[in-house]
Amino acid sequence: MPSEFDLIARHFTRPAPSAALGVGDDCALLRPAPGMELAVTTDLLVAGTHFFPDADPEDLGWKTLAVNVSDLAAMGAAPRWATLGLALPEPTAADDAWLGAFARGFFACAAAFGVELVGGDTTRGPLTLGVTLLGELPAGSALRRDGARDGDEVWVSGQPGRAALGLAQLQGRLVLAAAAPCLAALHRPQPRLALGLALRGLASACIDVSDGLLADLSHILERSRLAAVLADADLPLAALTACGAPEEAARTALLGGGDDYELLFTAPAERHGAITALGARLGLPLHPIGRLASAAPGRVELRDDDGRALPLPPRGYDHFA
Amino acid sequence: MPSEFDLIARHFTRPAPSAALGVGDDCALLRPAPGMELAVTTDLLVAGTHFFPDADPEDLGWKTLAVNVSDLAAMGAAPRWATLGLALPEPTAADDAWLGAFARGFFACAAAFGVELVGGDTTRGPLTLGVTLLGELPAGSALRRDGARDGDEVWVSGQPGRAALGLAQLQGRLVLAAAAPCLAALHRPQPRLALGLALRGLASACIDVSDGLLADLSHILERSRLAAVLADADLPLAALTACGAPEEAARTALLGGGDDYELLFTAPAERHGAITALGARLGLPLHPIGRLASAAPGRVELRDDDGRALPLPPRGYDHFA
Repeated sequence: MPSEFDLIARHFTRPAPSAALGVGDDCALLRPAPGMELAVTTDLLVAGTHFFPDADPEDLGWKTLAVNVSDLAAMGAAPRWATLGLALPEPTAADDAWLGAFARGFFACAAAFGVELVGGDTTRGPLTLGVTLLGELPAGSALRRDGARDGDEVWVSGQPGRAALGLAQLQGRLVLAAAAPCLAALHRPQPRLALGLALRGLASACIDVSDGLLADLSHILERSRLAAVLADADLPLAALTACGAPEEAARTALLGGGDDYELLFTAPAERHGAITALGARLGLPLHPIGRLASAAPGRVELRDDDGRALPLPPRGYDHFA
Repeated sequence: MPSEFDLIARHFTRPAPSAALGVGDDCALLRPAPGMELAVTTDLLVAGTHFFPDADPEDLGWKTLAVNVSDLAAMGAAPRWATLGLALPEPTAADDAWLGAFARGFFACAAAFGVELVGGDTTRGPLTLGVTLLGELPAGSALRRDGARDGDEVWVSGQPGRAALGLAQLQGRLVLAAAAPCLAALHRPQPRLALGLALRGLASACIDVSDGLLADLSHILERSRLAAVLADADLPLAALTACGAPEEAARTALLGGGDDYELLFTAPAERHGAITALGARLGLPLHPIGRLASAAPGRVELRDDDGRALPLPPRGYDHFA
């Protein structure tokens, strides 16, 4: 069997030209640009909890990094440097191929979003992936969760709900006529980095949809002490029903499903035109789905065209609930 | 059962006064001091591989952070900010007490070494701990592995070998007359941070002893393309035999055992006096145990008083070997 050090060297040692010192010492050394703040995010992904143990390793490599890029995008920070912790079961002859595919996916995502892998730790154990990602942004420009204001519009990017439909298809809970875009959203999420960077100075608050739109919206509402009223007619359901999902399943996936890594953000109503123009420039649909209100902080209402409250699907996913 | 968010809030939300934004958003925001480099290290600790599943949680909390502080110490960097990823099995009523004790140990270590916890991720899975630690050091001052020079002396701090004896005692492979200092070294390692910071400008290369003295020395030798000749008479064996270890077990523990987190460093011979004085000032014994040589890069020899080569114990621990 190749040793731990061989495995690291073979699959995970790549040039990190912007690091003062990369993989291979006690620490990596980095030189942040003057005047910039550092944004730091970390994720621990466990086989059986976050992904199927037999998940395609190249997709898994992509997604492991992509979900962290998404956290930085939601902050308006440009990703720079990553560390990777990797626990693998008792090694088998198949591990080398698995690691090669995982590394391909990971580095494809790294290349797409300007990330350098500068350190890591490989060990034996149940399949677990730990990523910490560092990014930079001009000091004071972060898109925080607590910046939303009464009357702001609520926006969501792209097509939330597809990943949840893809998962339902895989688990046999749903049979979609056109599953491909839903499975792609689940396996190869596209972090909305260009959007996040462009929203600095435009959005008042931002979060990425990882736990589910309602659950993640509630984080903004709690931090900003506001309520939200969403308009059912403005939810982008058509693309989900076009995949073959019944309308109720589509609504549940859109509002309750996580794992799409779209950006959910708020902005003053007078920036409506600027945001629409931004979406057109990026080739990414941006949907205004509701408004913030000051009554009953933390509450979310979904209303039909006549202003009647509709029932809400369950909120998000708590790994311990 | 308390939810994931409750658990994080209850046990792991502490003030992080030096962070621009701490736990509770997509990312933490940090402001490195101008002119400083960032040092980054990461560790993934898995129950059954790195610690016993029934390990005392308070000790485990301490050690989880301490091993990362040690990596920064070996680089000459001052620790500043940490993130913690925590996977826990299906929660039970005992988890709350376990997490409370783990957090006590973790934050005791954080307070001792000036670390703020700025972010994390809690999830369900086999017990696994992932720490990433960021530190700062003046640009260009890092103690790298590749700076050693022909003729430099090899030094080691404190008492390497105690943790390996403590483990042997726990596993019943050895019965020590005085096990307490060995068990303390195993459970509550003391990162040599003050030493690491003081070695900037004194040491030519440095590493912490986590895999074993010979294994970690070989990393310096490979990076610096040098050999080492160690003097058996200069190995600090007395404190180990005083615990009740037979001399051969003591030598094996000292040279082959890991997990002590002492610093192993090299320095030009003319700094011998300055290093001895530093040890006295810190109240920490510093032992000159050998010299570097240019012949046969990578080789380590152990010699007796008459210059005869002695057999070497096995090198270190490879999680995949």
